[in-house]
Amino acid sequence: MPIINVSSTLEYNVATPTTFVFSVVPAETSHQRILQENLVLSPDLDYEWLNVGKENMRNIRLQANPGSFQLDYQATVELSPDVDHAPMIDEVSYQTLPAEVLDYLNPSRYCESDRLALFAQKEFGAHLTGYSRVEAICDWVHNQVDYVSGSTDASSSACDVLINRAGVCRDFAHTSIALCRALGIPARYISGYAVDLQPPDFHGFFEAYLQGKWYMFDATRMAPLSGFVRIGLGRDAADASFATIVGSATLENMQVSAVVDAGSTGNEAPNDAISTS
Amino acid sequence: MPIINVSSTLEYNVATPTTFVFSVVPAETSHQRILQENLVLSPDLDYEWLNVGKENMRNIRLQANPGSFQLDYQATVELSPDVDHAPMIDEVSYQTLPAEVLDYLNPSRYCESDRLALFAQKEFGAHLTGYSRVEAICDWVHNQVDYVSGSTDASSSACDVLINRAGVCRDFAHTSIALCRALGIPARYISGYAVDLQPPDFHGFFEAYLQGKWYMFDATRMAPLSGFVRIGLGRDAADASFATIVGSATLENMQVSAVVDAGSTGNEAPNDAISTS
Amino acid sequence: MPIINVSSTLEYNVATPTTFVFSVVPAETSHQRILQENLVLSPDLDYEWLNVGKENMRNIRLQANPGSFQLDYQATVELSPDVDHAPMIDEVSYQTLPAEVLDYLNPSRYCESDRLALFAQKEFGAHLTGYSRVEAICDWVHNQVDYVSGSTDASSSACDVLINRAGVCRDFAHTSIALCRALGIPARYISGYAVDLQPPDFHGFFEAYLQGKWYMFDATRMAPLSGFVRIGLGRDAADASFATIVGSATLENMQVSAVVDAGSTGNEAPNDAISTS
Amino acid sequence: MPIINVSSTLEYNVATPTTFVFSVVPAETSHQRILQENLVLSPDLDYEWLNVGKENMRNIRLQANPGSFQLDYQATVELSPDVDHAPMIDEVSYQTLPAEVLDYLNPSRYCESDRLALFAQKEFGAHLTGYSRVEAICDWVHNQVDYVSGSTDASSSACDVLINRAGVCRDFAHTSIALCRALGIPARYISGYAVDLQPPDFHGFFEAYLQGKWYMFDATRMAPLSGFVRIGLGRDAADASFATIVGSATLENMQVSAVVDAGSTGNEAPNDAISTS
Repeated sequence: MPIINVSSTLEYNVATPTTFVFSVVPAETSHQRILQENLVLSPDLDYEWLNVGKENMRNIRLQANPGSFQLDYQATVELSPDVDHAPMIDEVSYQTLPAEVLDYLNPSRYCESDRLALFAQKEFGAHLTGYSRVEAICDWVHNQVDYVSGSTDASSSACDVLINRAGVCRDFAHTSIALCRALGIPARYISGYAVDLQPPDFHGFFEAYLQGKWYMFDATRMAPLSGFVRIGLGRDAADASFATIVGSATLENMQVSAVVDAGSTGNEAPNDAISTS
Repeated sequence: MPIINVSSTLEYNVATPTTFVFSVVPAETSHQRILQENLVLSPDLDYEWLNVGKENMRNIRLQANPGSFQLDYQATVELSPDVDHAPMIDEVSYQTLPAEVLDYLNPSRYCESDRLALFAQKEFGAHLTGYSRVEAICDWVHNQVDYVSGSTDASSSACDVLINRAGVCRDFAHTSIALCRALGIPARYISGYAVDLQPPDFHGFFEAYLQGKWYMFDATRMAPLSGFVRIGLGRDAADASFATIVGSATLENMQVSAVVDAGSTGNEAPNDAISTS
Repeated sequence: MPIINVSSTLEYNVATPTTFVFSVVPAETSHQRILQENLVLSPDLDYEWLNVGKENMRNIRLQANPGSFQLDYQATVELSPDVDHAPMIDEVSYQTLPAEVLDYLNPSRYCESDRLALFAQKEFGAHLTGYSRVEAICDWVHNQVDYVSGSTDASSSACDVLINRAGVCRDFAHTSIALCRALGIPARYISGYAVDLQPPDFHGFFEAYLQGKWYMFDATRMAPLSGFVRIGLGRDAADASFATIVGSATLENMQVSAVVDAGSTGNEAPNDAISTS
Repeated sequence: MPIINVSSTLEYNVATPTTFVFSVVPAETSHQRILQENLVLSPDLDYEWLNVGKENMRNIRLQANPGSFQLDYQATVELSPDVDHAPMIDEVSYQTLPAEVLDYLNPSRYCESDRLALFAQKEFGAHLTGYSRVEAICDWVHNQVDYVSGSTDASSSACDVLINRAGVCRDFAHTSIALCRALGIPARYISGYAVDLQPPDFHGFFEAYLQGKWYMFDATRMAPLSGFVRIGLGRDAADASFATIVGSATLENMQVSAVVDAGSTGNEAPNDAISTS
């Protein structure tokens, strides 16, 4: 039962009256309990909690006037993931998938799975199934795509990354998600905090729906899955921006951290499959 | 209060055991009442009702064995849309949009609104607002894009259509949706039946969120809005396929119809804005 | 010294006065001698020989009036390719490439080599060089891309094919060319006739510049290289259409054939590298 | 007869033995005479003159070893353009275009004219022809595309710019070229020096083939056409990079200038059409 301290500081220079929606607060689920949290806005603006999308995302909406504006959020989160034996976890056939996961088979802005049916079949169609197949996808993405800061931008999609072979965490997630969906495996994007991420930043990873649960995966292999704290989720990063800004504001400073307070993470055994959904 | 008879017949040659999800049944809403309906499957297979996505989509899932398979659906639907005075309908500012419509501002597979901010601003940013602005988008799409059967395929997106300037109903909807979202107006894709559509077929159109309601629009201008019967909705056509097929089956025959049984449609006045959501 | 009979018949229904440029006549080179040829136009229109691009392309330009129009071309061609020992053929370093081949390193409409540097390096960068490396590219394209008639259209490029993993001969050539250029190997598109092609049609393949010569390759592996008769060449298929039509005309019938008249083709040994340039 | 002093300084930090091809030297044509020029390399490396492509491009190829490397080029150029009366200049019909300009009707990497036939017809098909039509294209691009440094990268094409509506000089040229070709007007990319360009830099513009000559155009409107000094030309910017680098080197400093030495530029009358080809 690791306990994790997360925090984020976002400082903006606001040029015109601007509406912000922040997605920096961990979701509250049966596997992820907020023991304590603290939100400070400077200046001390009114804000509103928004539940955008499904699954207990807790976003913050506020309007800031011109000048300096800073958000400081800090929380202590207790994680109690399910840990299952990966080799036993199989895929769910299309005729028995629950209705609420079917949307996560559809192509989305950054995950054009509709174009990748033959690709996925040729690369991952032959032998494996279930958890092992998603792992094979992560291995492939990890090996075939270089992690290069600045190599992609806000319009880069899985197909772009499969051609350019470079990207950052959201691109690794998008590419993996697109390949999963192309094989009939529901997959969704997760934004969150990650213990031990270097350099410290928000993180993007994904979950695949297997045998009745959403299991976590991360093709970047940059941090242990057991230290991931979920903030938002959606079809892809379009649904889980850390900050949406309508108006005019410049990010002046950003600091993100996630450290183990008690218990431990990063000690998942080779065959541990981790689910928090 | 028009009453509309809709029907669809879909006949397949099934090659291997195949799972189908059909989205051909009208949604039941406070504005759209199913007076009577009849579903016949030949052979008489077991099926399951699926509520995919939100908003009362009623999909049918079944598994068919090799051989011939036919679905016949027929319903009588009473429509009671809200009719508002279009020139009075304004946009909702970002800081007051309800949480449940925010997803419809995000770019999606076929509506890359993230790329179109400058485009939309240059073409539609200057004068209009609200219902009139969405109408201006529909006018532009109607005039700048040719309706050409076969000019696009299942991977064509709004950006493709803006370049190629040709498409079919789903492309007209995608392009309009993308431009709305790029201007901060939530927009979503609707699949349905349409009275007077020539040639008869399923139809794809869209809704924009204005002043607290979802209003219907159709840049194809091929049929009267007041004769539209909603089946499904979603971010774009990826969420609202008439048939999703996992396995191997060939569509041998398709017949779709929508005719007025009583009351009338198509008589919306120039300034009528129609909402059924 | 195989001698090959080639012929093509193209029949059009012309709707308005239309200008045609046909590229169906074999090039005359030191390795490809036209022993006899015959061109019949019905009706018997005036035409002009055009040398488009470099390298002895002999195109035919004419203007046809509304009505039926047919071109029949037939020729006997003697091929005398250079046959070299493939394993000995190396790449030419950038600092010694002749000026006239440098354009064939640049990306072109259907061969976006500028995007594929990392891709090509990861897939083909490690061990091989020279002829063997181009062969490895052809093997990869042959195995990873399905030959599917109708899977692509006139706007499909190498990057599309690398995602969709399906195409026809021009797509196989474009993909191979793009990967060669991304590795610094000049490559160009060739249109031509091919003995034993099934079904009979015009063919598209490519040449790579190695050790001072342009060597032929064909990732489709559908016909023997030694039975290829070159018509046109260029950066990609945009430069080598069999017919360019400005006006309005419909192709009603097309017949293409290439058969061995004397000598033999298709007997290249495993290590034969064939050059006709 | 303006006389123009041009110069460029390019300073690199070379990491590994690297081959450079520089395209910074003005072409010598009947309309552009080099009165004097001076090339200094530091260190004083061997180099080779390369005539890449057609039309008297004079590129410099050399190999540099690790360390600092600098190229200084300076020239005095006398321009004697043809100046014609724009409203009289018409398009050339496809059946009479000379063979050597036909390649410039084909789509190229950054100018996907094959996709833009309907677009160009809808926007520019109605009234104008000849020089006025190309001017209408330049007007449209000038008004619809924002000049934004850093908004595009080396893979951005005309279709990207038509969607994103932002770009730099090469993007303005690519978009205009693509639209010209889509209308049957041969167009090509020109790289060069431009008097009065702010900030000083190399420039990219284009030429369209009308009534037997290549006329200069520039949709950026950032500098007078009569002060343009041509370096290279090609189908698009892929053929006319200022520096092609094979190896590993970082540009540390770049300075470009073009100033009038005698005579004058920028005084073209409203209806002057300028040709130097």
